[in-house]
Amino acid sequence: MYLYTYLVVWEISKNFDWWRNFGQALSNKTLLPRFEINCDMGEGYGRWKMGPDDEIMPYIDSANIACGFHAGDYNIMKKTVKLAKQYNVKVGSHPGLPDKIGFGRRPWEIAPEEIYNLIIYQTGALYGFLKSEGMELSYIKPHGQLYFYIEQNEDVMRAALKAAKTFNVPIVGAKNAHYEQIAKEEGVPFIQEFYCDIDWNSEGNLVLPAKSQMKTPQEIYDSIYKCGTTGSCFDNNGEELNIGFGDAPFSVCLHSDMPTALENVIKAREAIDKVNKQLGFSLKT
Amino acid sequence: MYLYTYLVVWEISKNFDWWRNFGQALSNKTLLPRFEINCDMGEGYGRWKMGPDDEIMPYIDSANIACGFHAGDYNIMKKTVKLAKQYNVKVGSHPGLPDKIGFGRRPWEIAPEEIYNLIIYQTGALYGFLKSEGMELSYIKPHGQLYFYIEQNEDVMRAALKAAKTFNVPIVGAKNAHYEQIAKEEGVPFIQEFYCDIDWNSEGNLVLPAKSQMKTPQEIYDSIYKCGTTGSCFDNNGEELNIGFGDAPFSVCLHSDMPTALENVIKAREAIDKVNKQLGFSLKT
Amino acid sequence: MYLYTYLVVWEISKNFDWWRNFGQALSNKTLLPRFEINCDMGEGYGRWKMGPDDEIMPYIDSANIACGFHAGDYNIMKKTVKLAKQYNVKVGSHPGLPDKIGFGRRPWEIAPEEIYNLIIYQTGALYGFLKSEGMELSYIKPHGQLYFYIEQNEDVMRAALKAAKTFNVPIVGAKNAHYEQIAKEEGVPFIQEFYCDIDWNSEGNLVLPAKSQMKTPQEIYDSIYKCGTTGSCFDNNGEELNIGFGDAPFSVCLHSDMPTALENVIKAREAIDKVNKQLGFSLKT
Amino acid sequence: MYLYTYLVVWEISKNFDWWRNFGQALSNKTLLPRFEINCDMGEGYGRWKMGPDDEIMPYIDSANIACGFHAGDYNIMKKTVKLAKQYNVKVGSHPGLPDKIGFGRRPWEIAPEEIYNLIIYQTGALYGFLKSEGMELSYIKPHGQLYFYIEQNEDVMRAALKAAKTFNVPIVGAKNAHYEQIAKEEGVPFIQEFYCDIDWNSEGNLVLPAKSQMKTPQEIYDSIYKCGTTGSCFDNNGEELNIGFGDAPFSVCLHSDMPTALENVIKAREAIDKVNKQLGFSLKT
Repeated sequence: MYLYTYLVVWEISKNFDWWRNFGQALSNKTLLPRFEINCDMGEGYGRWKMGPDDEIMPYIDSANIACGFHAGDYNIMKKTVKLAKQYNVKVGSHPGLPDKIGFGRRPWEIAPEEIYNLIIYQTGALYGFLKSEGMELSYIKPHGQLYFYIEQNEDVMRAALKAAKTFNVPIVGAKNAHYEQIAKEEGVPFIQEFYCDIDWNSEGNLVLPAKSQMKTPQEIYDSIYKCGTTGSCFDNNGEELNIGFGDAPFSVCLHSDMPTALENVIKAREAIDKVNKQLGFSLKT
Repeated sequence: MYLYTYLVVWEISKNFDWWRNFGQALSNKTLLPRFEINCDMGEGYGRWKMGPDDEIMPYIDSANIACGFHAGDYNIMKKTVKLAKQYNVKVGSHPGLPDKIGFGRRPWEIAPEEIYNLIIYQTGALYGFLKSEGMELSYIKPHGQLYFYIEQNEDVMRAALKAAKTFNVPIVGAKNAHYEQIAKEEGVPFIQEFYCDIDWNSEGNLVLPAKSQMKTPQEIYDSIYKCGTTGSCFDNNGEELNIGFGDAPFSVCLHSDMPTALENVIKAREAIDKVNKQLGFSLKT
Repeated sequence: MYLYTYLVVWEISKNFDWWRNFGQALSNKTLLPRFEINCDMGEGYGRWKMGPDDEIMPYIDSANIACGFHAGDYNIMKKTVKLAKQYNVKVGSHPGLPDKIGFGRRPWEIAPEEIYNLIIYQTGALYGFLKSEGMELSYIKPHGQLYFYIEQNEDVMRAALKAAKTFNVPIVGAKNAHYEQIAKEEGVPFIQEFYCDIDWNSEGNLVLPAKSQMKTPQEIYDSIYKCGTTGSCFDNNGEELNIGFGDAPFSVCLHSDMPTALENVIKAREAIDKVNKQLGFSLKT
Repeated sequence: MYLYTYLVVWEISKNFDWWRNFGQALSNKTLLPRFEINCDMGEGYGRWKMGPDDEIMPYIDSANIACGFHAGDYNIMKKTVKLAKQYNVKVGSHPGLPDKIGFGRRPWEIAPEEIYNLIIYQTGALYGFLKSEGMELSYIKPHGQLYFYIEQNEDVMRAALKAAKTFNVPIVGAKNAHYEQIAKEEGVPFIQEFYCDIDWNSEGNLVLPAKSQMKTPQEIYDSIYKCGTTGSCFDNNGEELNIGFGDAPFSVCLHSDMPTALENVIKAREAIDKVNKQLGFSLKT
C-alpha cells in the first residue's frame, strides 16, 4: 500500500510541484535508521520546571537539549544528558536566541555571524556535558524563532549550517526544499522532520504552537500513522497535505511543554513502532 | 648561579618546610616548554571593552579566554580565539562564577557539583570556538573568586579538577602544595604559576588585586627576572619570599585590565625571554 | 485564656530572657490591623510558573511580589499587582539577590551599599507597577538569602532599613530582638512575622525550607491557632517554643511553592479568621 | 534675524508641508525653559565603563540614565543620579530593550503591552534612586531601538506614552508630527529634540550612529547654532534641512559614547549658551 501511495504521490507531484516546497528528504534515508521521535528536553530553568522529562525520556529516540539561552542551565543540562544516557537516547543541541523571558520565540534581527557564534557557544557547552558522560553529539536542532529565522533568511541558514559543520553533525529542520538545497551546498547532512502536535496550513507551513489547535493523543497517533504510511497529513482545513517524505523515514517532533505531553508521546511511540514494523524498519531497543 | 640558589633553597626548605605550602611544581617541568606569560583575554562584554587585547596578544604565550559568565560573550570569544590563533598563542578556558556585575570576584557559596557543571558549560562553549578555528584547548584556568574558592575548599577543588579531567587538560593554579597533592590524586596535570603584578603577603598568599600596590613595568620586569633566576620574589613587606619553583619553569600571569597593562606585558616579555635564554630554554617564536 | 498565657509567658520571660532573642513585636500592634497572612507571589519567570497565584490570592492579606532578581519579571509583576488589586490584597516588594539559578537562596557576599542599591532598584520597579494600578507600596520584605543575610550582618541590616526608609514603608522580618532594636534606631517600622510551614529549631531559629519537615494543612492550622492564642509553637523537637508575640497580632508567612500551597493557605485563612474573631480583631473583607 | 527666518520657514512650510513630518514642537515652548543639552549617562555595566560621565555631567541640562536593560546597573544608577544632583542636572529614565549584548540596538518584536511593562519596570527602578536622593523624575527618553520602534509602530508608541502618563512626565522623542499627534491624544507632554552628532538624511530621518559620519566638535557647534537660530541643519547630502522647531527651543542630544564625546559636549554647551543668550533665554546655572 505504501508503494502505491508513493507512486500516486509521485504522479501528483509532477503536476503540483509539491516537492519544490518540501524537498525530497533523501538524506533521511541515510541519516535515520528508522522512524523516530525527537523531543525538546531540559527546558526548565533553575527551580522552574517545564515538561515531565523523566517520564517522557523512555519513549523517545532523540532529545533536543536546551543550552541555557532560551531555557535550560548548566545543572539541568548535566541532569538531562544523564537521563538521555540512561534510556539510550541520542542527544542533539537545541540552541535558541538569548531570550528567556520570551522563551526564544520572538523575532529578533541578529546578524548571521552572531547566529553562528551563539550556536557554537551553546552547542559547545552541551558538548562538554556529553564528553562528561562519554556520549556523542548527534545533531543540532535550533529552537523556536531561531528554527524559523533560519528558514526565512538564507544568510542565517548558512550560518547555522556552518555551525553544524564545525561540529561535524547533521542539522535538523522542517521538510523544506530550499533548506535541503543549501545544506547540500554547505556539505551538511540534513534531517527533515515532521510535526504532528501543531497545525500545518494549506501552504504547507507550520503554524506557531500558540496559534495551533491542541491535538489529542489519539489525533497524534493517527497523524503519525497516516504520514508514516502515506506521506500525507491533514492541514488545518482538513485537506490532505502531502508532506512528501516519499519512502524515507522521518523523525517526528513532539513538544514536551503541552498539557498532555506525556500521553502524546506514549501514543506517538505506539504509532512510530507500528509504522516501523509495518515498513520493515527495526524497533528502538 | 641558579643551581647554587637552588641548592641553598633546598637547604632552607629542609628546615623551613616552605615547600609544604608552595609545592614543588614538578609538573611544570613536563607541562611547560619554557618560562611563559599567560594573560586574561576577552574580558569585554557586548560593546564594553576591558583590556587592550589586540596589542597584548603578540607578547604572550597563553590566553585565558573568558567564557561569558563573569565576562566575555560569544562574539568576543570568537574574535579572541582568532586573535590567539593569529599570534600562535595557546588558549585555555577562563571560567568564572555567573556574576557579571561583580566580575566574578565576590564570595558565593555554590555547591561543588554546580561548580563542576559551570566549568564544563563554559569550557565546552570555548571548546566550540576552538573547534571552529582548528585549535586545541590547552588548559583550564579558573577566574577570580572561583580561582580562590578552589584553593579554599577541597570539594570545590576536586570538582574543578574533575572538570579538567573531562576535557583531558591541565588546570592552572597558584603555587600550592595542597592543590598539587589533590591534583595528583585526581590524575590531573597541574600548572603552577607566578603572579608579579599583585602583591604576595609574608605568608606566601596572593593579595587581592584591589588591595595590592600597583606595580610599574620595571618592577614587573625585576620581579620576573628575580623569581625566574632565584625562585624568590619580595613580599609586601619587602622581605624575600621563596616561591619555590626550584629548577622548574613557571608561567607568569599578568592582568590585562590594569592601567599599564600593555607596558607591563612588554617588559614582562623582555624578562621572560632573558630568563629563558639564560637558563637554556627555547624562545617563543 | 490568652491573657493568662500572656502572663505566664511574661513570668517565664523574666527568667529566661526569651524576649532578648525574639523582641517584643510592639510595632506589630500599630502596623497590623489584625492577624494576617502574607505570601510570596509572582515567583514565576517568563513562561515558567511557580505557585498557584490565582487560587491563593483570594485567601491572603498581603502579597510579597518578586521583583525580577531571584524570580519574577516585568510581565509577571504587572499581572500579579493587578491580581492583588482585584482581591484587595496589600502589596510589598520582595527583593532578592540577583541569582535566578539559585532562586536567591545561596550565601553571597555583597557589600551593604550594593544591597541598598539592589533593594531600591527592585522596589522602585515594583513601585512603577503599583503606580500603574493606583496602589500603594505597603512594605518591603526581602527574599530568601537576603532575608537571612540582613539578620546576620548589621551593616546589611542597616542598608535594608535605609532602603525601607527611602520608600517610607515598614520592613518585614522574623521575630528578632536585635532587628527590632536596629529598626528603631534607623526609624523604620518593623513588622515581625511568624512562620508555620517550615520548622523552628530549639534555639528559636528558622530552619531552611529544604531542611524542614513538610507540614500538612491541618498542622499549619493548628500551629497558627496555637501561636495566635498562646504566643507559642512547637519546635522541631516537639518542645514548646515561645515566639513571644505577646498580645500583638502577627503576620504569618506561607510559601506558595510548596506542593500543598493552596490547601495550606485555605486552612491558614480559617485559623487566622478564627484567631481574629476570638481576640476581637476585625476580619479581612 | 530669527523672526525673519521663522517667517520664511513658515512660507516654505505652507508649500512643502515639512511640518507634516516634523510637527510643530509647540509643547517644547512650555516644557523647556531654554535650549538644552541632554546626554545618555550611566551606560557602563559592572566594571565596564562607557563614556566619561564625570567630565560630561557639568556641561549638560538633562541626563538620560540607563536603567539596567541595555546598559547600567543598580550601582551605576545610584552613582549617576548622585552625579546629576551634584551638577543640578535634570534626570530622565532611559529605558531600553533587554539586550545588553546588542546594547539595545537590534530590532526585536516585543508586544506593546510588554513594552509598557518594561518601561514601567526600568523607570520605576530609576524612580527609586531619585527618591533616594530627593530628586524628581523629569521625563522618559527611550533608548536605541526602543526609540525607533516607538516611532515605527503606533501601538508601541501608545504603550510608551501610557508609561509616561503613569509617571506623569513628558516623553522625549525626535521631531515627528505623527508622534506629536498621538502624544496629544494620549495626553502626554512631548519634548522634541534635535540630533547633531549623527546624520539626518534628506527625508528628514535620523541615520543610525553606526552609519553616520563622525562629527568634529566644531561641526557640532555650527550645527547647533545654525539650527537654534534658523531651525535648519544640513542633511547628509549637504542640503539645507528644515527641522522645523519654529520659535520653540529644543533639547539637543549628544552621545556620550563617541570618541570625542567630551569635546563635543563642551562645544555644544558654548553653542547652546550663545543661542540662549541671543534669543533671550536664561542660561543654565
